[in-house]
Amino acid sequence: MKTTPYTDLLARVRERRPLVHHITNYVTVNDCANITLCAGGSPVMADAPEEVAEMAAIAGALVLNIGTLSAAQIDAMILAGGMANDRGIPVVLDPVGAGATRFRTASTGRLLESLEITILKGNAGEIGVLAGVEAKVRGVDSDGVKGDLAAIAAGLAESRGITVAVTGVSDIVTDGRRILFVDNGHPMMGSISGTGCMAASVTGAFAAESRDPVVAAAAALAAFGLAGERAAAAGATGPLSFRTALFDELANLSPQHLAAGARIRPLSKPS
Amino acid sequence: MKTTPYTDLLARVRERRPLVHHITNYVTVNDCANITLCAGGSPVMADAPEEVAEMAAIAGALVLNIGTLSAAQIDAMILAGGMANDRGIPVVLDPVGAGATRFRTASTGRLLESLEITILKGNAGEIGVLAGVEAKVRGVDSDGVKGDLAAIAAGLAESRGITVAVTGVSDIVTDGRRILFVDNGHPMMGSISGTGCMAASVTGAFAAESRDPVVAAAAALAAFGLAGERAAAAGATGPLSFRTALFDELANLSPQHLAAGARIRPLSKPS
Amino acid sequence: MKTTPYTDLLARVRERRPLVHHITNYVTVNDCANITLCAGGSPVMADAPEEVAEMAAIAGALVLNIGTLSAAQIDAMILAGGMANDRGIPVVLDPVGAGATRFRTASTGRLLESLEITILKGNAGEIGVLAGVEAKVRGVDSDGVKGDLAAIAAGLAESRGITVAVTGVSDIVTDGRRILFVDNGHPMMGSISGTGCMAASVTGAFAAESRDPVVAAAAALAAFGLAGERAAAAGATGPLSFRTALFDELANLSPQHLAAGARIRPLSKPS
Repeated sequence: MKTTPYTDLLARVRERRPLVHHITNYVTVNDCANITLCAGGSPVMADAPEEVAEMAAIAGALVLNIGTLSAAQIDAMILAGGMANDRGIPVVLDPVGAGATRFRTASTGRLLESLEITILKGNAGEIGVLAGVEAKVRGVDSDGVKGDLAAIAAGLAESRGITVAVTGVSDIVTDGRRILFVDNGHPMMGSISGTGCMAASVTGAFAAESRDPVVAAAAALAAFGLAGERAAAAGATGPLSFRTALFDELANLSPQHLAAGARIRPLSKPS
Repeated sequence: MKTTPYTDLLARVRERRPLVHHITNYVTVNDCANITLCAGGSPVMADAPEEVAEMAAIAGALVLNIGTLSAAQIDAMILAGGMANDRGIPVVLDPVGAGATRFRTASTGRLLESLEITILKGNAGEIGVLAGVEAKVRGVDSDGVKGDLAAIAAGLAESRGITVAVTGVSDIVTDGRRILFVDNGHPMMGSISGTGCMAASVTGAFAAESRDPVVAAAAALAAFGLAGERAAAAGATGPLSFRTALFDELANLSPQHLAAGARIRPLSKPS
Repeated sequence: MKTTPYTDLLARVRERRPLVHHITNYVTVNDCANITLCAGGSPVMADAPEEVAEMAAIAGALVLNIGTLSAAQIDAMILAGGMANDRGIPVVLDPVGAGATRFRTASTGRLLESLEITILKGNAGEIGVLAGVEAKVRGVDSDGVKGDLAAIAAGLAESRGITVAVTGVSDIVTDGRRILFVDNGHPMMGSISGTGCMAASVTGAFAAESRDPVVAAAAALAAFGLAGERAAAAGATGPLSFRTALFDELANLSPQHLAAGARIRPLSKPS
């Protein structure tokens, strides 16, 4: 088997079982817990102000997801994130629905100003809104963005000094300097609730075991997308049987599978 | 294929993918999100007072479910519902457990007084309690009601100027003038948590695309019940495999299936 | 069929369908609701201070789980638990993550001081921490305990006057005087989120119909573990298909299955 930084990282997550502290929404939280286990990590959810910093301090990564945000939850995220920043623990932010309401856009801004975010993962509409370009967000779904999405993401990453991951038919991962496309995934992933949240959880587990957020996000999105491809190939009869297969395939995904199936490519520079 | 107002409505929901804003309980919320997707809608959950009105304003329907109510959540429902009323957006209320505690009964009363509810969907016990007749609610389950349920529901609908949907072996849908029975469904639907909540979500998606709440509720309950029949026929080995099949069957349910399988009948008037 | 107190209890739960009031976390709450149904009980979740005592008063058992605790939720637990104590309704406490943060340890202590807990169910790390011995808890997972776990559990049970259930490869159930081991279960149960929470829910349903908490906890853990064994034998392809099978197998588990498959044994006293 040809090892790569991506396959090595998957093997390391499986071996080390990093604790991934989530402060997340109550819609897809069970999926986030189980997908973290399937990826090889150990999930814990905690959002009380009395304990979030203490929990974050013992975690390998912190995942913040504003899918059903409240003012108190954003405060807890800042407490937990501050501790994570102090300890050098990576922080993944999923700005669910940023752009759909002013509260979501403003709360995401507050998190980006208050914390050092390691990886910002969103769909095209959310990332477009945060980059300040013309974009449409409808509920928690993206209706797309005007312009060159990779350039927009790279610009946002560079100006903020963070890694940006944009999920879509081809995912984009960039730190402003490097731009990677991840072509794994399957349309059935859009037929169930929470695949975006799950992608953030897997990214958290991978970020816990990597010093390079670009490698972590690309490996996570490739592994998750590949599990989706394999689940669809296994013959799901509808969205929920596909969901079951998606989890099972991620749990069963080996570094060998990832070596053979990951489709991660750098942006071909215009000549 | 023979088209009917019901099959046309299913086709329209599938084509238009209405945004269904939920303020709902944290027990079955994931099921509500996924069943909305399977019905053809697009779910969004939001309950922060800072954003509920803004989210409701862009939705096609608003679903309020008091399964794990709190005082703050009822306040948020009134904010969101007020905006929905202003914009003519249909509001579905599921008074989960009304009658089981005074807080649930009183909160449902407050919602009915504060908002123009389009469709009130409950089980026999909940509807009986709200109609002021002798009824028993045990936790979130109905222990039935004394008297002619269709007449009780029709009376409540007429006095409130709303549409009432009562789920049971035969569902009842009435605006006081019209009374429809929906005979679709399967006993296995009672073996899992949340089928009542899911029925409200599907009703929300259908109400978003219909001007007639009676047609919307009847079509939604027929489609959901028919999916249950088809799931049972597909050979589930227990409650959870039945649940998976229920979602898959609703996602795969075509207007043709609904034309062939819907069992919606008007009340035969006593001669 | 050879009947035992365990098989009689399963039959009684199935016949009487006890209402099990949960105040629990938002991660695994749906699993708790569905596993309660599969065990034969009727779940209800309610945590508003306005209604918890009233809901607890009509329940057959109260299950308290601190998986995503908050200060307000602990207050609600004390209100509900006080009512349960007044009415002689059994209370099951699952101290999820006690030892991982000071807030979890202190809140568990507060519940143990304020309420008469009938059954305290935790993993080795949680029970070790509460017994005051050297133990490690990482997030919500146990990293084990130093010393003789059965003796530690029995000591805690005796000093508190409660029944203690410790889940693990062999579960331990003890009231200080009697010590039972339950050898049912399967390693796949550790591959999904929430099996610990589900075990507490099943224990609640059984405690509602038994006067002997040791019998209730042992029967519940044997039934749940046996369902896990049968689910694994049914050929799950990964964690989530195993989860589906686990619920289905518990729903289909008959007193006959339990009579044939329960592996409950008393501690062999050292000679």
